[in-house]
Amino acid sequence: MGGIKKSDYYDALEGLEHELVGMARWARARGERIVVIFEGRDTAGKGGAIKAIAGCLDPRQCRVAALPKPSEDEQGQWYFQRYVSHLPTSGEIVLFDRSWYNRAGVERVMGWAGEDEVARFLRDTPVFEKMLVDDGIRLFKYWLSCDQEHQEERFKERLDDPLKRWKLSPTDVAARWKYRDYTAAREAIFAETHMGWSPWTVVDFNDQKRGRLTLIRNLLDRLPDTHVPPEAIDWPELGHEPYGEEFERLEPIEPFPMKD
Amino acid sequence: MGGIKKSDYYDALEGLEHELVGMARWARARGERIVVIFEGRDTAGKGGAIKAIAGCLDPRQCRVAALPKPSEDEQGQWYFQRYVSHLPTSGEIVLFDRSWYNRAGVERVMGWAGEDEVARFLRDTPVFEKMLVDDGIRLFKYWLSCDQEHQEERFKERLDDPLKRWKLSPTDVAARWKYRDYTAAREAIFAETHMGWSPWTVVDFNDQKRGRLTLIRNLLDRLPDTHVPPEAIDWPELGHEPYGEEFERLEPIEPFPMKD
Amino acid sequence: MGGIKKSDYYDALEGLEHELVGMARWARARGERIVVIFEGRDTAGKGGAIKAIAGCLDPRQCRVAALPKPSEDEQGQWYFQRYVSHLPTSGEIVLFDRSWYNRAGVERVMGWAGEDEVARFLRDTPVFEKMLVDDGIRLFKYWLSCDQEHQEERFKERLDDPLKRWKLSPTDVAARWKYRDYTAAREAIFAETHMGWSPWTVVDFNDQKRGRLTLIRNLLDRLPDTHVPPEAIDWPELGHEPYGEEFERLEPIEPFPMKD
Amino acid sequence: MGGIKKSDYYDALEGLEHELVGMARWARARGERIVVIFEGRDTAGKGGAIKAIAGCLDPRQCRVAALPKPSEDEQGQWYFQRYVSHLPTSGEIVLFDRSWYNRAGVERVMGWAGEDEVARFLRDTPVFEKMLVDDGIRLFKYWLSCDQEHQEERFKERLDDPLKRWKLSPTDVAARWKYRDYTAAREAIFAETHMGWSPWTVVDFNDQKRGRLTLIRNLLDRLPDTHVPPEAIDWPELGHEPYGEEFERLEPIEPFPMKD
Repeated sequence: MGGIKKSDYYDALEGLEHELVGMARWARARGERIVVIFEGRDTAGKGGAIKAIAGCLDPRQCRVAALPKPSEDEQGQWYFQRYVSHLPTSGEIVLFDRSWYNRAGVERVMGWAGEDEVARFLRDTPVFEKMLVDDGIRLFKYWLSCDQEHQEERFKERLDDPLKRWKLSPTDVAARWKYRDYTAAREAIFAETHMGWSPWTVVDFNDQKRGRLTLIRNLLDRLPDTHVPPEAIDWPELGHEPYGEEFERLEPIEPFPMKD
Repeated sequence: MGGIKKSDYYDALEGLEHELVGMARWARARGERIVVIFEGRDTAGKGGAIKAIAGCLDPRQCRVAALPKPSEDEQGQWYFQRYVSHLPTSGEIVLFDRSWYNRAGVERVMGWAGEDEVARFLRDTPVFEKMLVDDGIRLFKYWLSCDQEHQEERFKERLDDPLKRWKLSPTDVAARWKYRDYTAAREAIFAETHMGWSPWTVVDFNDQKRGRLTLIRNLLDRLPDTHVPPEAIDWPELGHEPYGEEFERLEPIEPFPMKD
Repeated sequence: MGGIKKSDYYDALEGLEHELVGMARWARARGERIVVIFEGRDTAGKGGAIKAIAGCLDPRQCRVAALPKPSEDEQGQWYFQRYVSHLPTSGEIVLFDRSWYNRAGVERVMGWAGEDEVARFLRDTPVFEKMLVDDGIRLFKYWLSCDQEHQEERFKERLDDPLKRWKLSPTDVAARWKYRDYTAAREAIFAETHMGWSPWTVVDFNDQKRGRLTLIRNLLDRLPDTHVPPEAIDWPELGHEPYGEEFERLEPIEPFPMKD
Repeated sequence: MGGIKKSDYYDALEGLEHELVGMARWARARGERIVVIFEGRDTAGKGGAIKAIAGCLDPRQCRVAALPKPSEDEQGQWYFQRYVSHLPTSGEIVLFDRSWYNRAGVERVMGWAGEDEVARFLRDTPVFEKMLVDDGIRLFKYWLSCDQEHQEERFKERLDDPLKRWKLSPTDVAARWKYRDYTAAREAIFAETHMGWSPWTVVDFNDQKRGRLTLIRNLLDRLPDTHVPPEAIDWPELGHEPYGEEFERLEPIEPFPMKD
């Protein structure tokens, strides 16, 4: 499977965007709460997938939760506490760029969490998620996969492309030697937390464009496609020539010089 | 001035992205705090300009603050209180999609704030901003302008394009009859809050692509271009064939079907 | 059992205060997290019991969580969300003046929560609490009881004593006709949430002073009495006559005039 | 002036409590916002004065703000930011146990803040406070004074009395050698921040009981004494014998054993 064509991608994406926008209207009208978790290997494409979704929705409705390292106070709290405060209220969609699964993923592989903490996490998580789901939150968990060949390529790109260099952290570098540890950690996560009420969905992101389409298609298929028509808006003629801008004090600055 | 060509736009933008990424690295290394306010007419292009900047930066460093309507508690508080809690800490960049200027803009024009509240706001704001600036925050205030002809076109597009329909609110509709009131409100804002320590910069967004380039160019020109080299990263050979993904429990789902 | 003597009460309380202070030192040194829930009938004496404990501890270590009515946003969230954000970090003691049990108590009796919500709450709460306890939080749940004769007396006192009048709310008034409904609600709570890992403890508060002593004694008995000595502090002589206050600009105001 | 008698104190305090309760009712009815700052020497009696006020008011209306050391994130923020988030909404009373004046008090004396930071603080504070006051917040600033003889006595008491030992911190110890530095710091604060819109009031706390009465009397005298009658409450007879508690599952635990 080679990469898909850019124009095909954008055509397909546009179709999905229409559905996403309709879904968001439904979620708002019905007061739905939606949580989408994006997990996966470094470089798999979590950020891009999130942008593809959030990019066409109202930022006041669709939030991205990308938590920084926990503060000292947060480290002393119940593990789930700082994530809980980002859960959605009625009508909201929250996209988690990484999530509570950090504990059994990067923290485990890097040795930042003890095995007892990991074990407790794996035991508690299905219970925690069940409470959310029973409360009416619609929870989707996506695992973005890619093989090491693609991961190496993308790491290399981050290393060499100044625009992507900030994405490369020392943890990423360490991840190179831990590819199989991450595999094992993921399998342990699946073994303990792939439940009927909160299943995992794995999406192949070796081709990131196709991965995005696949993920969004799956997400939409699992939500009701109840059509809520947009509010009708009355749109009378303006009734006069459109006004121009009138500046008394400050003028627009010189526009960016284009080569001609 | 007609619209600029898409490819010229992307070429120019890429150049700016390199500088933005460099600037962000400098801001992090130096613990700088940067606030950029985006104000302007409905449809002017605040969201697009914000995305152009935030889109190439680390979301853990560059946050977008797009505040919802104030809650009842917030309505009872000091007017600036809820904005203050979004100000940056060391090394952060915060982009305000609308800002405290709401009071003297939309709230004034729509009659949601009394004239005494507006007067107090206009008197207090330079003082408030001076405190931030004196504290070392780098504050940039952009006003995105467009004439009513372009505004009408864009409103119409929002009305007709299902992908943009959510951007159209009843307040927008009302704004059509208030174009000149917004002009007057803006001029009052400039008269009272265009200070040496926190000047306004007007950018013509009749052509949104060019507007974005102009704004970003201006922002970069006003920040030091101190080069902070990215941390050197040692990148040894992997030393083995790259591993493939191995799934024991769950397989990736069927990829999105492309027409061929 | 008549009321106990004031002096006996204060003597006994002082003994307990010594133990509370020692316990708090231990909690801080060990990074313990302690949650104490105070539930019970209106007028039972939750506030007084909380003050007896918090009054002798460092307010920076021992917090009281008395949540107001949920905001609109909070109403749309996962029911436990707003409580979770008040849970303690390492070394903290949090006293909940009412708690998540509101749902199965006042909200149920007053008809503010539907029976399905109550059922879900009663099912989820032991699970929620188990997660906290398994995470290492020490959770204590006290139910303060009083018969209606005492309740009526205290309501009457609130009605007649201007210093206590603010404690009397319309909900209290309604509670008078619902005494037995509260009994039934409490029994349902006990039936579903009195678990090995988070048992309820009922304390008779018909005599409030004695109730406080009983509760604190019980709390202390259930915590380790590991003695952590206070940090040694070197206390040299001052080496000069103590200084007086010297005022250049402002003098202390006239003291409150005492009758002589 | 010797210490006042305990019974005289409690008689006088009770009178003031009636006024405080009335004031709070007025504040709630009118949506007033009240901020009271308690500053002063270690051991002066800030905590006790705050308890005397908060102790008779509804904790859901009257909050105490005793901020811990700033987190790393907070240290990077605008100095006033973390205090701003504790300001009151309509109808609230907030008592600050220490406040933003830390910067020009303990931080200056202990050398934790640079002289430039202190200078900026002293310049900005009147401006900051004016904004709050102009916004309608009623701001009261009390400085609790005591001479070193009393301070030494109280330090000694904290050292020797296990119930008070937690109040003694290494910073307190250091304060003993800095009595006059604190005097100088206070005078600098008065010189720069005793403004018409936010004056300081010094209260002699060599006698703490009298100090409390003096402070509360002054606070009440500076607020309108508009009487807002408590809501009338209809109080019908119960119409039946009062019910007793009935326990099915759990009985109250054994009461605390009183010596007889």
